Amino acid sequence: MSETTDAKAAGRRGRRGGGRDARRAIRKSAAEVHKPFVIRKLKPFEIVDEAGLKIIEDNADTILEQVGVEIRDAPHAIERFVKAGAKADGNRVRFPKGMCREIIQKSAPAVYTQHARNPARNVQIGGDTTVFVPNYGSPFVHDLDNGRRYATLNDFENIVKLAYMSPHMHHSGGTVCEPVDIPVPLRHLDMVYSHLRYSDKPFMGSVTAGERAADSVEMARIGFGGDLADRTVMTSLINASSPLVWDATMLDAAEVYAKNNQACIITPFILAGAMSPATAAGVAAQSLAEVLVGIAFTQLVRPGAPAIFGSFASSMSMQSGAPTFGTPEPAIILYTVAALARRLGVPFRSGGSLTASKIPDAQAAYESASTLIPSMMGGVHFVLHAAGWLEGGLAVGYEKFILDCDQLGAMAKFADGLDLSPNGQAMEPLLNQPPGEHHLGTAHTLQNFETAFYRSETADNNSYEQWSDEGGLDAAKRANKIWKKQLANYEAPHLDEAIDEELKDFVARRKSEIDAGGE
Amino acid sequence: MSETTDAKAAGRRGRRGGGRDARRAIRKSAAEVHKPFVIRKLKPFEIVDEAGLKIIEDNADTILEQVGVEIRDAPHAIERFVKAGAKADGNRVRFPKGMCREIIQKSAPAVYTQHARNPARNVQIGGDTTVFVPNYGSPFVHDLDNGRRYATLNDFENIVKLAYMSPHMHHSGGTVCEPVDIPVPLRHLDMVYSHLRYSDKPFMGSVTAGERAADSVEMARIGFGGDLADRTVMTSLINASSPLVWDATMLDAAEVYAKNNQACIITPFILAGAMSPATAAGVAAQSLAEVLVGIAFTQLVRPGAPAIFGSFASSMSMQSGAPTFGTPEPAIILYTVAALARRLGVPFRSGGSLTASKIPDAQAAYESASTLIPSMMGGVHFVLHAAGWLEGGLAVGYEKFILDCDQLGAMAKFADGLDLSPNGQAMEPLLNQPPGEHHLGTAHTLQNFETAFYRSETADNNSYEQWSDEGGLDAAKRANKIWKKQLANYEAPHLDEAIDEELKDFVARRKSEIDAGGE
Repeated sequence: MSETTDAKAAGRRGRRGGGRDARRAIRKSAAEVHKPFVIRKLKPFEIVDEAGLKIIEDNADTILEQVGVEIRDAPHAIERFVKAGAKADGNRVRFPKGMCREIIQKSAPAVYTQHARNPARNVQIGGDTTVFVPNYGSPFVHDLDNGRRYATLNDFENIVKLAYMSPHMHHSGGTVCEPVDIPVPLRHLDMVYSHLRYSDKPFMGSVTAGERAADSVEMARIGFGGDLADRTVMTSLINASSPLVWDATMLDAAEVYAKNNQACIITPFILAGAMSPATAAGVAAQSLAEVLVGIAFTQLVRPGAPAIFGSFASSMSMQSGAPTFGTPEPAIILYTVAALARRLGVPFRSGGSLTASKIPDAQAAYESASTLIPSMMGGVHFVLHAAGWLEGGLAVGYEKFILDCDQLGAMAKFADGLDLSPNGQAMEPLLNQPPGEHHLGTAHTLQNFETAFYRSETADNNSYEQWSDEGGLDAAKRANKIWKKQLANYEAPHLDEAIDEELKDFVARRKSEIDAGGE
Repeated sequence: MSETTDAKAAGRRGRRGGGRDARRAIRKSAAEVHKPFVIRKLKPFEIVDEAGLKIIEDNADTILEQVGVEIRDAPHAIERFVKAGAKADGNRVRFPKGMCREIIQKSAPAVYTQHARNPARNVQIGGDTTVFVPNYGSPFVHDLDNGRRYATLNDFENIVKLAYMSPHMHHSGGTVCEPVDIPVPLRHLDMVYSHLRYSDKPFMGSVTAGERAADSVEMARIGFGGDLADRTVMTSLINASSPLVWDATMLDAAEVYAKNNQACIITPFILAGAMSPATAAGVAAQSLAEVLVGIAFTQLVRPGAPAIFGSFASSMSMQSGAPTFGTPEPAIILYTVAALARRLGVPFRSGGSLTASKIPDAQAAYESASTLIPSMMGGVHFVLHAAGWLEGGLAVGYEKFILDCDQLGAMAKFADGLDLSPNGQAMEPLLNQPPGEHHLGTAHTLQNFETAFYRSETADNNSYEQWSDEGGLDAAKRANKIWKKQLANYEAPHLDEAIDEELKDFVARRKSEIDAGGE
């Protein structure tokens, strides 16, 4: 994993020289130090034993052998599978037991580096790391001032900027919200441009059509200075149409990315009881079956192309059939499927800060924490929707984004685990301080005070009286002030002017081509 | 563990006969079924390996040998320790390595049953169970209508009633809030009476003085029908005065309870960086040292008396020195100390739904979940403060209580883990439903729908439009309606009239004795 070492070295070098930045860096508190990703010092929590995992793997194999998957409007994909040993009956493709696993284990990387425009922000995906990635795909935005409304490109840019500024967010994400003021066929151009212009963190490409994926690759090539060769600079979201269907749109996008050595997150999106049986072990077996086919496809397109095992599973309200989040069942599924991904030997994506709440209230926080904590303890590598989610993903919230980012910082600290160094054991003060004598003033406490405890950016720990005197604001109202201040202080990262011009030219040219029906 | 089997059998019998109750029971949804405690099917999460735990145990032994503890105003306690092999130098008592552990492992039970007035509600404490217990010790209460104010006996009774009615709360608790309208020397009488009169769940006795503990034992004797003999009917909270001090008040109360075979929770209450060094491993070693002394004391008083290893550790705001909650460090401590308790072989108490927030907002929920989830995943047996906590314990919130109880229900469901029964594996629908065909109408889904997913009592999973049409209430406002409805529907459990009279007589007599200075 020399790539990781490179990323760390780059991190030490810092991203820009100059006295002003250096002085600013020194002023930053410990909590604000930017780390490119979390390195987990904890073993993942195992919810089921090896024998149980083997049962689920066998079930997935049985599903692929007996039922198979339907591959819609993509004869070229069917051809690839048949050549590799599958049997096709029209669109239905069945796989001999073990076939997909074997293809994957021959070439899919267990760990890869996604390069960022700023090399200090390269992320290692896989192994003992966790990468936090913003909300994805919401048509609406929510904030306390304007309530809920359709998202615009301006909102998109704002979320990209807030993600860029958060020391706890490692990635710029993809469709952080849908800029619905831009026509669908043009949208991807503005989104990719925003990620390249307003952030220097890694990002995700468009997947809504093969040619939009190709545009994403081309813009990344320009943004990264013309050389992608063997660098992975995008990780993009390829969803199955559960149950057991892969459609042409997603397979086309996956093909473009895999061909270009860009990463795909192969994700069954499952509302349990609708797109799968209602039980956790059933969801796990079906998810594994769908992912085996999707990742095998990327390896048939280009052996060694990076691919992530994705899982998105929610439970359901028995009253209305609406999806529910932060409930126990998706956590059980997450822990189970994470272990399946480890056994398959590829990175894993799941979790986030998910909620069905419409606002950043107690429901939103309970549910988000109940998804985020399993994300960390389950050893998820790529945590999409790590901040901002509201309303089952229909909206991204500005205040929710700020509150969630704070939790990400806490998770990163938790991942450090127990420090058993001599300083951590603290035997010096324990043996020298007599009973009844407090430790506030000891040399050990003074030495550890700054870094001993995670410093929340949004919590109010003051007395009731002080909190009340300061307006008695709830967490959401405090977060409202924070995001406004952050956007007011935003400074764009460096982007070479020539590159910026080239990107703008590309966007303008493609927009006119697409408007002319030439896509 | 035949006691558990008895408790389960009693649970099946139901607590009252009669057609009306039976019909009501049938109407209850699956979510409302009352289970006396959680049986965890998951292994606890281990944050540190055996070698690491051994280091901490050695450190605790070294502290006890070299520094020892101070035992204040309790020469009889010092005498007991010296007789058992300790060395006293005035109030300072030092212990040979391994002495306390040996005393504890000879007689302290790994598992005990705390009996409830209603045998169906007996709780097993220790082993693979978790018992949820209400908030403890708050002088203030908070609700949305009246804000924050001093607690009264009426509030105390209300919290006891709400705990009684929650299917997710297993215990009536102790000082669920401080009834400050009652003079301190009389308060314990009204509190114990409330637990016996308004609930039939197990409860905690008073610990603020030896004679108040004795009153608690006497009232329990009356409430349980005069026979405590070998039954443990109270579990009470005995706090160390960290660092490394045990005072007479707590030791006196512990002596009364242990003598009567009632259970003590021996708990260091540590604000890290003040009552201990600021590091997690330091807190763990000191906690272990203090607990070893406390539990050994109970075993010297009465070998075999039930005792719980308690741990309460919070981090600190670096700005103000105020305690902070739901941060990563206390979770790391919880997982570490839980493992130490398992190795010692006694039940463990820690965690809860802790927060520094003044109101039931997003901060309260994030922080509470970040304490409650570790409580479950760390295998905590006795979760004090499981519902209601606000403001670092200074207040108990009515809405917070309702919201937290809902989370307890979710935790209980999570503890069931992955169901790998044939029904759980769901291979029948997985092999029979063709790709692309949804599972909503399958026999398997219909058969599992009612119990497949935890049904939250407080979450709103409706569409934005429906939620908005219904008033756009946040979680706290919905909880406000719930607790009012619950209190309006409250029906007291059966209590024999003669017993009630005897209890009232005892309270009246003791009050006049105490008022006359005769306590």
